[in-house]
Amino acid sequence: MTTSSSVSQVGGAALPAFALDQWYVAGFAWELGDKPLARTLLGRALVLFRTSEGQVAALEDRCCHRELPLSCGTVEPQGLRCGYHGLLFSPKGQCLEIPGQVRIPAKACVQSFELRERDQILWIWMGATSDSQPDQEPPAYPVHSDPTYRFGGGVYHYDAPYQLIHDNLLDLSHLGYVHLKTIGGNASIHMNADLKVSQDGDCVRVVRWMPDSEPPPTYAAAWPFKAHIDRWQEVEFHPSHVRIWTGAMDVGADALDNPQRAGFHMRGFHGVTPETENSAHYFWTIATNPHPEMQDPTQLVIDQTAATFEEDKVVIEAQFRNQQRFGQRPVIDIHVDVGPNRARRVIDRLRQLTAQRQQAAQTL
Amino acid sequence: MTTSSSVSQVGGAALPAFALDQWYVAGFAWELGDKPLARTLLGRALVLFRTSEGQVAALEDRCCHRELPLSCGTVEPQGLRCGYHGLLFSPKGQCLEIPGQVRIPAKACVQSFELRERDQILWIWMGATSDSQPDQEPPAYPVHSDPTYRFGGGVYHYDAPYQLIHDNLLDLSHLGYVHLKTIGGNASIHMNADLKVSQDGDCVRVVRWMPDSEPPPTYAAAWPFKAHIDRWQEVEFHPSHVRIWTGAMDVGADALDNPQRAGFHMRGFHGVTPETENSAHYFWTIATNPHPEMQDPTQLVIDQTAATFEEDKVVIEAQFRNQQRFGQRPVIDIHVDVGPNRARRVIDRLRQLTAQRQQAAQTL
Amino acid sequence: MTTSSSVSQVGGAALPAFALDQWYVAGFAWELGDKPLARTLLGRALVLFRTSEGQVAALEDRCCHRELPLSCGTVEPQGLRCGYHGLLFSPKGQCLEIPGQVRIPAKACVQSFELRERDQILWIWMGATSDSQPDQEPPAYPVHSDPTYRFGGGVYHYDAPYQLIHDNLLDLSHLGYVHLKTIGGNASIHMNADLKVSQDGDCVRVVRWMPDSEPPPTYAAAWPFKAHIDRWQEVEFHPSHVRIWTGAMDVGADALDNPQRAGFHMRGFHGVTPETENSAHYFWTIATNPHPEMQDPTQLVIDQTAATFEEDKVVIEAQFRNQQRFGQRPVIDIHVDVGPNRARRVIDRLRQLTAQRQQAAQTL
Repeated sequence: MTTSSSVSQVGGAALPAFALDQWYVAGFAWELGDKPLARTLLGRALVLFRTSEGQVAALEDRCCHRELPLSCGTVEPQGLRCGYHGLLFSPKGQCLEIPGQVRIPAKACVQSFELRERDQILWIWMGATSDSQPDQEPPAYPVHSDPTYRFGGGVYHYDAPYQLIHDNLLDLSHLGYVHLKTIGGNASIHMNADLKVSQDGDCVRVVRWMPDSEPPPTYAAAWPFKAHIDRWQEVEFHPSHVRIWTGAMDVGADALDNPQRAGFHMRGFHGVTPETENSAHYFWTIATNPHPEMQDPTQLVIDQTAATFEEDKVVIEAQFRNQQRFGQRPVIDIHVDVGPNRARRVIDRLRQLTAQRQQAAQTL
Repeated sequence: MTTSSSVSQVGGAALPAFALDQWYVAGFAWELGDKPLARTLLGRALVLFRTSEGQVAALEDRCCHRELPLSCGTVEPQGLRCGYHGLLFSPKGQCLEIPGQVRIPAKACVQSFELRERDQILWIWMGATSDSQPDQEPPAYPVHSDPTYRFGGGVYHYDAPYQLIHDNLLDLSHLGYVHLKTIGGNASIHMNADLKVSQDGDCVRVVRWMPDSEPPPTYAAAWPFKAHIDRWQEVEFHPSHVRIWTGAMDVGADALDNPQRAGFHMRGFHGVTPETENSAHYFWTIATNPHPEMQDPTQLVIDQTAATFEEDKVVIEAQFRNQQRFGQRPVIDIHVDVGPNRARRVIDRLRQLTAQRQQAAQTL
Repeated sequence: MTTSSSVSQVGGAALPAFALDQWYVAGFAWELGDKPLARTLLGRALVLFRTSEGQVAALEDRCCHRELPLSCGTVEPQGLRCGYHGLLFSPKGQCLEIPGQVRIPAKACVQSFELRERDQILWIWMGATSDSQPDQEPPAYPVHSDPTYRFGGGVYHYDAPYQLIHDNLLDLSHLGYVHLKTIGGNASIHMNADLKVSQDGDCVRVVRWMPDSEPPPTYAAAWPFKAHIDRWQEVEFHPSHVRIWTGAMDVGADALDNPQRAGFHMRGFHGVTPETENSAHYFWTIATNPHPEMQDPTQLVIDQTAATFEEDKVVIEAQFRNQQRFGQRPVIDIHVDVGPNRARRVIDRLRQLTAQRQQAAQTL
């Protein structure tokens, strides 16, 4: 684990491992209780906490006195107190108290990071340079605040680089092989369905529509469909998170490309935040809109989603271990790689941009 | 773990870590059922499998698309299917199908290795160069097919280099110290018995005869000896495997050097296959010829052998950990090292030969 | 783990990691029973044992034949026998017997170290050079032999460098934060008490007196104090061990600086011996003088001390892991660091001296 952004050699030039000047998911609001939380994000060992006044904060997880992790300390109304000699730090990282000593040296402080709470997601600004400030608010995710939806989620740790998770989320074709036991179903249907891949700035969309099809058992149990359904699967990639929204409605009930279309919805949020160059955090929620006359399918949907994501984790970690033991070797691309490869180009461009900003800051 | 042969510096020149252009033991026939088997042999990460048509095969354990281990996949009648996107590979490593895609790129293939099944042993040809072909059939081991014998065995993983196992198998004198609790018996008898060491090409033999001696308890329980016995212990080293055949007959019943001699036999097969430079697989069987009028001793012999080999494993792994922490330091040789040192010279010669063949292939 | 002293770069020059030509604690007398004990001290992998004649000995833990740890062997009246081929070594490391072989080569020996038993502590002389001989007897610790005291102790392994333990022992101010659940009590009392730090050669003393104070519950339970007490906490640092003696007497019963003062005593012995540059052994005892008319508090004192030291271990190991992941970064000093920083200067000077002796030996 390193404490600054790692770099990798790409084409001879050192490219940062991560796209910076971005809001990344640092956790969920419900993770910050009365204890501090240690979490390494983009190579930086941080402590996250919520003061008893409710303010969320992210500091470097290292006391500036004798280097104990501040996450071993205790949360107090004004901030976080170190568990070794009791130094107290504010949410901005200033030392407020050194027990037994009057004078507080100017250097008694730790680095702080912008942490924001929005729609139950904790977003952290990871800047390309030390003086980088957020140029926009963190993304909204109104599904978490929409009373017609119920949701649940989890936090998984991956021993694999974040981009392997992007690949997986943008490729719906693996369902038939990886998720045979859960949501997979017939492999050839998944492999042969028409996909539309499009791009808008740093956002990559992969959309699959299955009009006039049979409702799968989970759908039929959750929603009073009359007969055949118009079904959709929509993946929307952003550099730090991915939305996968799926659902269905009675045939012809609405236009498939109407974002306000009615029917049964399953809306997945996927925050993919690098921990280090070779490990990642995966923050996910799945939300659904229970039908008033049907049994609430939320818990079933959450359980199935968790099981599916655990299958992905097994595959992706095995894939990464294999990449490591075989080293740099050629691979082939196939038809399913269009979406993932677009996302990789987005990340590459943002890493280039990060490199330029870092070089510009050094030149000043 | 590396995916190609490691090298070590010997006398200034890089010598390959392993003797190549040899048949090595890859496993036992009964290990290949309906699931693929991941195993690293001589630094190469392989998947072994048996098609539903019965053919055995060994492939590089890496899909050429996104590098998932093929051992995470499923065995089908025609070959092995990857568990991520469903690519299907033949026993020769050709890609037979890419689900959802008509064209199969020429580069869609993985490396295959010659794997043969003979007398319930799986032999793999590990070539010095990429175009090396077997110049002979793998060794026969008719004991496994002989109806007068019954046998059992096991596969042990060693966190120690293969040559430390060779040393141990060729040195019967450690029985009195390592195997005190099992087959050891009186240490001074083992240490002082006369040994004959001989060599024939790459084969080293260590033979000990104990004529007119008391039958040990296991022997007496297994065979109706009349009184004293003529007893033998014969170790036959080959570069990739060792046979240790022991036994006894009534005094004077036959010539001790008659390979067809009657009496009670315990025949051990020991396949020693490097996994990496610093780890090894140990494939063993022990066979015996039950006497029709005595209780069948086979299970007892197998259990005792397993216990003994576990004692060896503890010692050899402790020895290797100690070698690693102390680094290159002088050692002394004693009388028991004659056999082991001969075997080391055989392996050294074959590693030199491997180096020459590899250099010749590069010069072409 | 290395087998010779590690070095670290300090100020451009290579300084040995440890102060040598010192007696270090190798263990306690009661640790040597009928089995050999493997222990790495100052980077050297050793085996400690006691012959059946009672002599204690320390040898390099490596047979000179095939490098098995001698700690895998067996203790015999004359010495230690290797568990692989039975070579027997004397307490001075000479090979006394090679089973099955008459001639013993001159090189058949292993390195031995001076090990002495005094007041139930095993002291080992770790020399700066190969011919270094002890220039004094190992320290006495008469508390262990004093019939008015009862004591107990333990051996802890630290995944942290020895100097972080020194820092902790010389700083009594952490009690209020680390030991909240055990002996901590009111943090601000500990932080604000007056400390006297003094030095005499390589010995650093940190003394805190609390005259006319309330007896804490443990004290009141152990000793029939009349009312208020005069209380002391005295830390005495030596390069290889630390004494922490605390206690109390009725107000004005004696002079606080009288070493023979009466009252209730808790006397802690702390041997801090580097294992490697980044790990250490911590050998501790705690002794107390039970009052004839009170319930014996010894076991309570031992249990509380063990719990306290386990809290320290958690903090110090977390501190070290954090130092490793953050790398070299500036820290600030506060008032509590006076004692620890003096001790670090003592160790630095002794490491310089070690370096000079080693260089002088090389020049000869």
